[in-house]
Amino acid sequence: MSKKLRLGMVGGGLDAFIGDVHRKAAALDGKFDLVCGAFSSSAEKSEKTGDALGLDPDRVYGSFSEMMEKEASLPADLRMEAVSIVTPNHVHFEPARQALEHGFHVIIDKPLAFSLEEAKELKQIVEETGGVLALTHTYTGYPMIKEAKTYVEKGMLGEIRKIYVEYPQGWLATPLEQEGNKQASWRTDPSRSGEGGAIGDIGTHAANLAEYVSGLEITKLCADVNITVKGRLLDDDSAALLKFNNGASGVLMATQVAAGEENDLKLRIYGENAGLEWTHTDPNTLLFKPLNGPAQKLRAGTGYLSDLAQKNTRLPAGHPEGYLEAFANIYVEFYNAVRDHQAGSFGSVTDYDFPNVDDGIRGMAFVANMIASEDSDQKWTEFEI
Amino acid sequence: MSKKLRLGMVGGGLDAFIGDVHRKAAALDGKFDLVCGAFSSSAEKSEKTGDALGLDPDRVYGSFSEMMEKEASLPADLRMEAVSIVTPNHVHFEPARQALEHGFHVIIDKPLAFSLEEAKELKQIVEETGGVLALTHTYTGYPMIKEAKTYVEKGMLGEIRKIYVEYPQGWLATPLEQEGNKQASWRTDPSRSGEGGAIGDIGTHAANLAEYVSGLEITKLCADVNITVKGRLLDDDSAALLKFNNGASGVLMATQVAAGEENDLKLRIYGENAGLEWTHTDPNTLLFKPLNGPAQKLRAGTGYLSDLAQKNTRLPAGHPEGYLEAFANIYVEFYNAVRDHQAGSFGSVTDYDFPNVDDGIRGMAFVANMIASEDSDQKWTEFEI
Amino acid sequence: MSKKLRLGMVGGGLDAFIGDVHRKAAALDGKFDLVCGAFSSSAEKSEKTGDALGLDPDRVYGSFSEMMEKEASLPADLRMEAVSIVTPNHVHFEPARQALEHGFHVIIDKPLAFSLEEAKELKQIVEETGGVLALTHTYTGYPMIKEAKTYVEKGMLGEIRKIYVEYPQGWLATPLEQEGNKQASWRTDPSRSGEGGAIGDIGTHAANLAEYVSGLEITKLCADVNITVKGRLLDDDSAALLKFNNGASGVLMATQVAAGEENDLKLRIYGENAGLEWTHTDPNTLLFKPLNGPAQKLRAGTGYLSDLAQKNTRLPAGHPEGYLEAFANIYVEFYNAVRDHQAGSFGSVTDYDFPNVDDGIRGMAFVANMIASEDSDQKWTEFEI
Amino acid sequence: MSKKLRLGMVGGGLDAFIGDVHRKAAALDGKFDLVCGAFSSSAEKSEKTGDALGLDPDRVYGSFSEMMEKEASLPADLRMEAVSIVTPNHVHFEPARQALEHGFHVIIDKPLAFSLEEAKELKQIVEETGGVLALTHTYTGYPMIKEAKTYVEKGMLGEIRKIYVEYPQGWLATPLEQEGNKQASWRTDPSRSGEGGAIGDIGTHAANLAEYVSGLEITKLCADVNITVKGRLLDDDSAALLKFNNGASGVLMATQVAAGEENDLKLRIYGENAGLEWTHTDPNTLLFKPLNGPAQKLRAGTGYLSDLAQKNTRLPAGHPEGYLEAFANIYVEFYNAVRDHQAGSFGSVTDYDFPNVDDGIRGMAFVANMIASEDSDQKWTEFEI
Repeated sequence: MSKKLRLGMVGGGLDAFIGDVHRKAAALDGKFDLVCGAFSSSAEKSEKTGDALGLDPDRVYGSFSEMMEKEASLPADLRMEAVSIVTPNHVHFEPARQALEHGFHVIIDKPLAFSLEEAKELKQIVEETGGVLALTHTYTGYPMIKEAKTYVEKGMLGEIRKIYVEYPQGWLATPLEQEGNKQASWRTDPSRSGEGGAIGDIGTHAANLAEYVSGLEITKLCADVNITVKGRLLDDDSAALLKFNNGASGVLMATQVAAGEENDLKLRIYGENAGLEWTHTDPNTLLFKPLNGPAQKLRAGTGYLSDLAQKNTRLPAGHPEGYLEAFANIYVEFYNAVRDHQAGSFGSVTDYDFPNVDDGIRGMAFVANMIASEDSDQKWTEFEI
Repeated sequence: MSKKLRLGMVGGGLDAFIGDVHRKAAALDGKFDLVCGAFSSSAEKSEKTGDALGLDPDRVYGSFSEMMEKEASLPADLRMEAVSIVTPNHVHFEPARQALEHGFHVIIDKPLAFSLEEAKELKQIVEETGGVLALTHTYTGYPMIKEAKTYVEKGMLGEIRKIYVEYPQGWLATPLEQEGNKQASWRTDPSRSGEGGAIGDIGTHAANLAEYVSGLEITKLCADVNITVKGRLLDDDSAALLKFNNGASGVLMATQVAAGEENDLKLRIYGENAGLEWTHTDPNTLLFKPLNGPAQKLRAGTGYLSDLAQKNTRLPAGHPEGYLEAFANIYVEFYNAVRDHQAGSFGSVTDYDFPNVDDGIRGMAFVANMIASEDSDQKWTEFEI
Repeated sequence: MSKKLRLGMVGGGLDAFIGDVHRKAAALDGKFDLVCGAFSSSAEKSEKTGDALGLDPDRVYGSFSEMMEKEASLPADLRMEAVSIVTPNHVHFEPARQALEHGFHVIIDKPLAFSLEEAKELKQIVEETGGVLALTHTYTGYPMIKEAKTYVEKGMLGEIRKIYVEYPQGWLATPLEQEGNKQASWRTDPSRSGEGGAIGDIGTHAANLAEYVSGLEITKLCADVNITVKGRLLDDDSAALLKFNNGASGVLMATQVAAGEENDLKLRIYGENAGLEWTHTDPNTLLFKPLNGPAQKLRAGTGYLSDLAQKNTRLPAGHPEGYLEAFANIYVEFYNAVRDHQAGSFGSVTDYDFPNVDDGIRGMAFVANMIASEDSDQKWTEFEI
Repeated sequence: MSKKLRLGMVGGGLDAFIGDVHRKAAALDGKFDLVCGAFSSSAEKSEKTGDALGLDPDRVYGSFSEMMEKEASLPADLRMEAVSIVTPNHVHFEPARQALEHGFHVIIDKPLAFSLEEAKELKQIVEETGGVLALTHTYTGYPMIKEAKTYVEKGMLGEIRKIYVEYPQGWLATPLEQEGNKQASWRTDPSRSGEGGAIGDIGTHAANLAEYVSGLEITKLCADVNITVKGRLLDDDSAALLKFNNGASGVLMATQVAAGEENDLKLRIYGENAGLEWTHTDPNTLLFKPLNGPAQKLRAGTGYLSDLAQKNTRLPAGHPEGYLEAFANIYVEFYNAVRDHQAGSFGSVTDYDFPNVDDGIRGMAFVANMIASEDSDQKWTEFEI
C-alpha cells in the first residue's frame, strides 16, 4: 500500500471556496494524494480544475457517478481509497451513498445532507457498508477545543450550568445573492441549501461545538429565526434558548447579518467551579477561569496541555496555527481511521476523534428543530431526531 | 447659594458597597457636599458612619423620616438640597416619596423600587412635586456609551437589526448568602430585593443600556429565568430573546453564576451598514465596524469624539477613567438639573442626560415581564408596563 | 482636628491639566478639603479659579509667597495643613521650600524640580524641616503595580534578568507648541521645563516605575536622545540601554512623537522563573507568566491579591478604576503620613508607600544622565547623582 | 514539465523542527513534490525519514553531496528541480554551493550562512550560476506584513521617524542545551550556530522585518549583547539602539530568556502622520494609527487590502492563517521564480517578493555588527557589510 491515501473529490471547482480548503487541509501533512475528481456538474469546468491541479486527465470525470464506477474498476493499488464531498448540500447524499456502496470511504462537508431524512438514510448506508464517514465540523479540530473538551472531562469545571455559543458573521448583511455571489447564491437557495440558511451553514457548527466540548446534548430549544434582508428566501439570523440533558441552560446565536463581523465563533462554558472561553479570532488561546483565582491563558503548542491537544498541534507555542490546520487535524484522524479499516483494526467510529454520521444527524435535526420552534407559539420545542 | 450642592444620604453604612460609590462619585468633581445622612436603620451604625465621614453629629439621623423632617426645618441656605438613596430595593420608595414631598431632589440607585406598582406611584409623586429624580444606571454614564448613542442617532449604522447585550457575573456561583455575605444576602431575599434577583440587579442594567444606546424599546420578550444554586430564593441566571419597536431582534443574557466572570457588561448593536461594540472590561474603547472597511477603535478622551462624549470625560486619551467617573457623570448631570430647577430654568427632565423615573419604570416592568414570560408556556410575552 | 485635611494649591488655574487632576484625586476619597490656593501667577486668573472652585475669596492668593505667609498666620485649626504644587517645573522648588519652612507638608507633581541641584537642595530642606514631601509618580499608585512589586518581593520571578519599560505618546508629533497649546508650550521650553523634554515629562515616570517594581536601581545607561520635530528646543524622543545594580539589563523607551499612540506606559520584567507584564491601557490586569505554565491574568479588586494591592483598590473586580484613582492612592497615603506626623507617630518617610524626595532626586538624575550619555561618545554612562 | 515542482531536501530528519515546517509549507498549496532528500548526516536516520515520508528509497541519500551528484545524473524530467536546505547554520553554505553549481535552485533557512564571509561567497556563486536562491525569513510572508509594507510605500505614514522591533522568547531561560534538547544544543554551540546565538536565530528576523516593511536600512547600531544563563557559550539576549538611512532612529530587542514569552515578534513603525503595529501573536491584524483619528484594525482576508496582501491570503476574513501559511507564501513565490527561470522569463530576483541572498548578507552583517558593537566602548558602530 502506498504511504499516501489516494483521495478523490466531488465538487470543488476552481471558483469554489470550501473545495480548496479541503485540498489544502489534505495536503498539509503529506498523508493524502488527490488522484481524481468530479469537480463540477459542468464537465468542462471539471476538466479545467483537474488540469490546474495537475491531475491525470483520465481521472478527471464529468460526473460523480462516472467517477465512482470508473475508479472502482481500477486496480486496487491505483484507485482512489476515499472521497471528499465538497458540493452544496443538495449534492451530499447521493455521492456519499454511491461512494460507500462502491467501497470508498467518505469525508464530507457539513451539514451532512439536504434534510434530516437524507441524513438518517445515510446513517443506514454507513452501517450497511461499514465504511468510514467523517464530517468536517472544522472548529472541533482546533487544539484548544480539544483542551477544552479535556478540561470538561477531567471535571475541572464541575457540573456544567451554562453554555453560551455564538457565531456572528456579517457577510450576508446585504443581498449578495442578488449580485451574482456564488457562495451567497446557493446558501440562500432552498433548493440547494435545504430548509435552513444561516442555521444550517453556521448554526450547526455552533451547536456541534457546544455539544462536543461539553459532552452534553441539547434536549429542548426555543428559537427566534429571522429573514433580515428583504427578498431573501432563507433565514440569515437566529438565536435560541437551550436546555441540555444535565439540566444546564444555554444560549445560541448564529447570524450572518451582523455588519462588520467576520467569523467569530465563540464558546463559553460555565460549571460550578470554573468557566472556559474560546474564540475563533484567537484560536490558540483557551481561557480557564477558576472561581476564586486568576484566569489562565492556556496556549496551543505548550508542554502543559493534554495529549489530545498536543496531538493536534504541529508547532511550538507562539507559532500560530489556524483554520487550515484545524481542518487538517480532521483529515489526519480520518486517515488514521481509513488505514485502520484497511488493516482490519477498525472497531467503531466513536474510537476516532472526528465528527461522524451521528453528529451529522444531530446537525440536521438542529436545523429542523430550530424551524419547528420558530413556527410554534410554544416556548419550548423538544429536540427530536 | 453655596457653590456645592448640599447632599444627604439614605443608606450607605460603612460596610455597604454602593453607598461608598455614591459618595466618591459625588465628591469627585467638587460639586457636592455630603452634609447629612441616615446611613442605617440602626441608629448606632448611622452614627458611626457619620463620624467616620466627619459629619456634624447633629445631622446624622437615626431614620430617614427624621432626616427629612429635621432637614426641612433648617434654614434654606443650610439644609440639604438633594438626597441620595442607596438602600436595598425595599427601602427605595418611601424615602424617595418623603424626600420629594419635603422638596428635596432625589438621586436613587437602581432598580427604582421594590415593584412595578411602587415605581408607577413614584412617578406620580415626581409629577406632583415637580422634583428632580435621577436613577443611577451607571453604565450609561460612560463616555463611549455616549458616543455609541451618538453614532446611532447620526445614522452611522443605518436601521438597527440586531442587539446583543450580556451581563455575566460569577460572584453568586456559590451560596454566599448562606455564608453571611451582606451584598448577597439582601439581593437574594425576596422581601428586600423584590421579585427579581439577577434580573433586577443586573438584567435591568443590560436592558436599560440596550434601549439607551439604540433609542429603541423592547416590545416583546421570551425569557428563560433560572435559579441555579440550590436553596436560593431568587433567580441568579437568565436569558431572553427580544423584539424591539422597529422590528429588530435581540438577545439579553444576565447571569451571576458564570464562574470566573467579573462584571463584563457588553453591548453589540448591528445595523444595515455597521456594527458597534462596547464592553465594560475596556470601557474607554468603542469599536465601530463598518460593513466593508476596517473596524475603528474609537477612544475616550480624543478630539474626534462627539461633544456629548467629550463632556463626559475628564482626561486626555490614554488616561483611563472608570466606574466611579461614569457614576460621577450622572451626578454632574443631576447637579445641573437641580441647579437649573433652583434657578427656575428647569423645563423637562428629558432635557437632561440621566436616567429618570420613566427609565426606572421600564426597569421594573422588565423584571415583571421576564418573570411573566418565565411563568408562561407562550413563546412571546408582550412588554407591558 | 477636623477630619479632612486642609489643602492649599500652587498652580492649577482653570485651563491647567494636572491641577484639576490633583483636585479630583484629593477629593475622591473625602480626605481633603481644598481651602486655599495661589492658582496662577496672574492674580486675576487665580481669583477666577478660586471663585469657580467655590473658595473663600480671602484665601485665594495672588502669589504663593503671599499664601504661605498669610496661611501661616491663621489659627492652627483653620490654616492649610499641606500644599499641592502643580506648576511647571521651574516653579516647583521655591514654593516647596517656602511651604516646608512655614511648616506645611508638600505634595508635588513630578519631576521634582527644575534641575538636579534644586532637587538635592530640596532634600536638605525636607530633612531640616522634617516635613512630609510626596511626589506624584502616578503610575506607582495603580493596584496592579503594587501587586507586581509584591510578586517581585515574594521572589515569584527569581533573580531579575531583564526589564523593558516603554512610554510611547504621540501628542507632540506635530509642533503644537507653535500653535498656542499651553501644555506643549511649557514642556518644550527649556526655561520652564529644565534641560529635559520628554525624558523629564515621561522618561522619569518610566524609570521610576521600573525601579519601584523591581526594587533595583539603574547603575549605567546608554542613551539615544532626539529632537524629532523641527524647531523644537527640547528632546521629544529617547531610548536607552540600561544596567541595574544586580546585573540585570534593560531597555527604556520614551517618546512623544509616536503618531497615533496615547499614553501607553508599559512594563515587563523577567526573572529566572517568570515574567510580569503591565500596561497602562489595561491597568487593572497584571500578567504573570511562569516559565512552564499558563500565563495568569491577575485582576484588580479580587480577593487573591496581596494586602498592598487590595488596600489600593476601592471596587470589586470588574469595576474599572483608572488614572484618578491611582493618583488618589498617592493622596491617601500622603494623608496618612501627614496625620501620623501631626500625631507624633511619623517615623520615616520610607514607611509610607508614596514616592518621596529621594525618588525625585533619582528622577532629576535620570534626566541629567540621559543627556550626559547623549552628549558622550562612550557607550556606557555611569548613573551619577 | 510536471505541474508540481520536484523538491529535494538537505536536513530535516524526523526529530528536526524546521525541516517539517518546510515540508508542510511546500505541500500546502499543491505546488511542490518532495522527491528526494539527504535528511541527516547519519545515513540510517536519513533512510528512516525518507521511509516515513513515503519517498522512493533510491532517492534517499546518505549525504547531500551524493544527492547533488545522483540527482543531476537523472533525466531532466525526473530529477529534483530545487532543494530546501534546513540544516544548522554550519551546513548551509556547502550544500547551497553544490546545489547551485549542479543547476538546482535553492531555498534555504535563515540565517543564510555560518559567517558573513560565507554569505558573501554564496552571493558570488548565485551570480555566477544564475540560480534562484530564496531565504525563509518567515515573518515577511504574512499578509499583514505585506499590507504594512504597502502602507509605507503609499506614504500613509509620511516620513518614518521611529521603529521599534522586538522579539521576546523565553524557551532558553534555562540551560536546555545541557539537558539534551536538540534545538537548544546546536543553537548555543558556536561550532554549529556561528558567532551569534539569539542575535542570529531571532535577531536577524527582527532586523529583516524592520527593514522589509520600512524600506529603510540600518546604518548604525549600539548593542548590548548578553549571555544570561550561566555556562552558555553564545548570546541569549540582546538589545540595540538603531539609526536608519533616512535619519530615523529605532530600538531592537531580541531575547530568548524572557521567561514566559513564546514567540512574539512585534513591529511598530511611526511616521510623521501615522503609526503601524503588527504582532505575531495576532498576525492577521495590522493596526493603522493615524495622528488624529481612531486606530483602524486592518484584517487579513478582507477586500479592502492591497493586491499584495490579498495575494498572500488563502481564506476570507475571520479564518485565521498562521505560521505555516506565511512560510508557504515564500514557497509559492519561490515556485513562481523557478518556473519563470525555467521558462526563460526570469529577470532579476528583486522582481520576486521573497528574501534573497542580499537579505541573507545583511542578516549575517547584522550578527557581525552586533558583536562588534558589544565589543566596543564606542557608542555607535557603523553597519558594515
